[in-house]
Amino acid sequence: MILTLTPNPALDVTYTVDATRAHHEHRVREVHTAPGGKGVNVARVLAALGDDVAVTGPLGGASGSQLRELLGAAGGVDQRWIPVRGTTRRTLTVVDTAGATGFNEPGPTITDEECAVLGERITAHLEDLDVLTVNGSLPPGLDGEALAPILRSARAADVPVLVDTSGPALATLAAAGATVLKPNAAEAQQATGEDDPLHAARALLALGPQSVLCSLGGDGMLAVTAGTALHGRLAEPLHGNPTGAGDAAVAALARHLARGADLTDPDELADMLRQAIGLSASAVTRPLAGQVDPDLAASLRATVTIEEIR
Amino acid sequence: MILTLTPNPALDVTYTVDATRAHHEHRVREVHTAPGGKGVNVARVLAALGDDVAVTGPLGGASGSQLRELLGAAGGVDQRWIPVRGTTRRTLTVVDTAGATGFNEPGPTITDEECAVLGERITAHLEDLDVLTVNGSLPPGLDGEALAPILRSARAADVPVLVDTSGPALATLAAAGATVLKPNAAEAQQATGEDDPLHAARALLALGPQSVLCSLGGDGMLAVTAGTALHGRLAEPLHGNPTGAGDAAVAALARHLARGADLTDPDELADMLRQAIGLSASAVTRPLAGQVDPDLAASLRATVTIEEIR
Repeated sequence: MILTLTPNPALDVTYTVDATRAHHEHRVREVHTAPGGKGVNVARVLAALGDDVAVTGPLGGASGSQLRELLGAAGGVDQRWIPVRGTTRRTLTVVDTAGATGFNEPGPTITDEECAVLGERITAHLEDLDVLTVNGSLPPGLDGEALAPILRSARAADVPVLVDTSGPALATLAAAGATVLKPNAAEAQQATGEDDPLHAARALLALGPQSVLCSLGGDGMLAVTAGTALHGRLAEPLHGNPTGAGDAAVAALARHLARGADLTDPDELADMLRQAIGLSASAVTRPLAGQVDPDLAASLRATVTIEEIR
Repeated sequence: MILTLTPNPALDVTYTVDATRAHHEHRVREVHTAPGGKGVNVARVLAALGDDVAVTGPLGGASGSQLRELLGAAGGVDQRWIPVRGTTRRTLTVVDTAGATGFNEPGPTITDEECAVLGERITAHLEDLDVLTVNGSLPPGLDGEALAPILRSARAADVPVLVDTSGPALATLAAAGATVLKPNAAEAQQATGEDDPLHAARALLALGPQSVLCSLGGDGMLAVTAGTALHGRLAEPLHGNPTGAGDAAVAALARHLARGADLTDPDELADMLRQAIGLSASAVTRPLAGQVDPDLAASLRATVTIEEIR
């Protein structure tokens, strides 16, 4: 089973209005509410592909209950949330014909005790896990230092860990035993101070992971290991909604790791890159995060070109 | 007991941000959530004054549960909501140093069956009621025509009905047996087509109520009956937060009616006007709707001047 850990899940709310104007009143035409947070999106992609997947993380308050209910109604994902006293954040996107306005609530502060319960619950069932993923931003109280012991336990139990986060936690978790990191170019640059994505990926690799996959938006994705550096890209970049493309890529990487892929084999690394780019590109064609098109992903995968960087 | 009927209650959410800009991302600094809707605010004022008060109306979804929980935690208000399948609306106010931006969700559509249950629950306990109030906007399915039978039953049982709504329902409920209407000047003008608030109030009075109280913002309030027209105002208008001033005025009117005030007596009408203006002005000094300052209200009441209009 693949377990996705979302340290800061969210209830994603979208308002449709006629025209957004600061310091005016707006009649909301439509309200759409969906379970959110990167690990939740990854899990929904995996469930859509028929994989055995569970989610965990801290969940609390009315928005937490609503997230659980909506995710349960969607089906296919085993929910193993840790109840917390704080309230799960809502992310509000106000959409009009000219674009989107975002309002991001702060996440709850996670207490030491809640961190400890989260760690215990994950480590008590490591024998069931094929892969553990850590996805998205970290709330106060649940930083890289707090997550590091969970990663160390997972690796000690031979469970590969895939990390997609940003900020200082990226380096902390790389050093704590992450098997694969999946930053985007901006996150890799920010974490290392290296402007070139390849240099940034190699700097992260030096901290301990077996591989760093760095997404480059429409320009494809880098995959770097100690012995190999590959750059994969679609024959032609797709246009659409980039929300969730990164989560689809993480889902592809997770299922590859779950099948016991040997990342030191350049052919397997190239295959993983193709899978990640194909699935990610298919998400770009879907309006909502957490959705992919498996048939489209398969045909896009066939158009991916891989170039070895020397 | 006073029962306030809120046809379209709301969960009032306030976000504090640094600067609101359309089509940008915002980090929300603070989230404040409160039970809302005009009848809820009126009930909270009455509870703060020690009155026996209950709320009713349609309530549903996660936001409805949260409203119930927050109002329960505040205490003092008996909650007699009718569960509905739709989701109670949220009203979002985004506040920065330059002002407020509002996003108002649509209310749920109330089904005929839910309307019928609401009517049955209210009319089954009319003998317990000293006053019924109807407060705020009406959601789809619960319009003036749907509420009219409830008003007729109340009046048949000698329960006075105080109506504070807007749009076509104001005239419909005036004709259906409302004892007192409490529009503001804009609402009275919109309902009658009369530009002058006194003419507008008299046009509404002609539809059947014993009295029409029309609030004029900083310029005080009119009270009109078949025999008398009074204009009351503070010696000096107060500056502050006008949110909830109208609800405080309605609370003052409701408790006056609950004591069996004879509105055909000009002295009692003048006293009611003083009470409404004093309590309403005290709400202006408080940051949140549903809050009043009884001591300040008493001293403000003493400064109200009443002028008879002939």
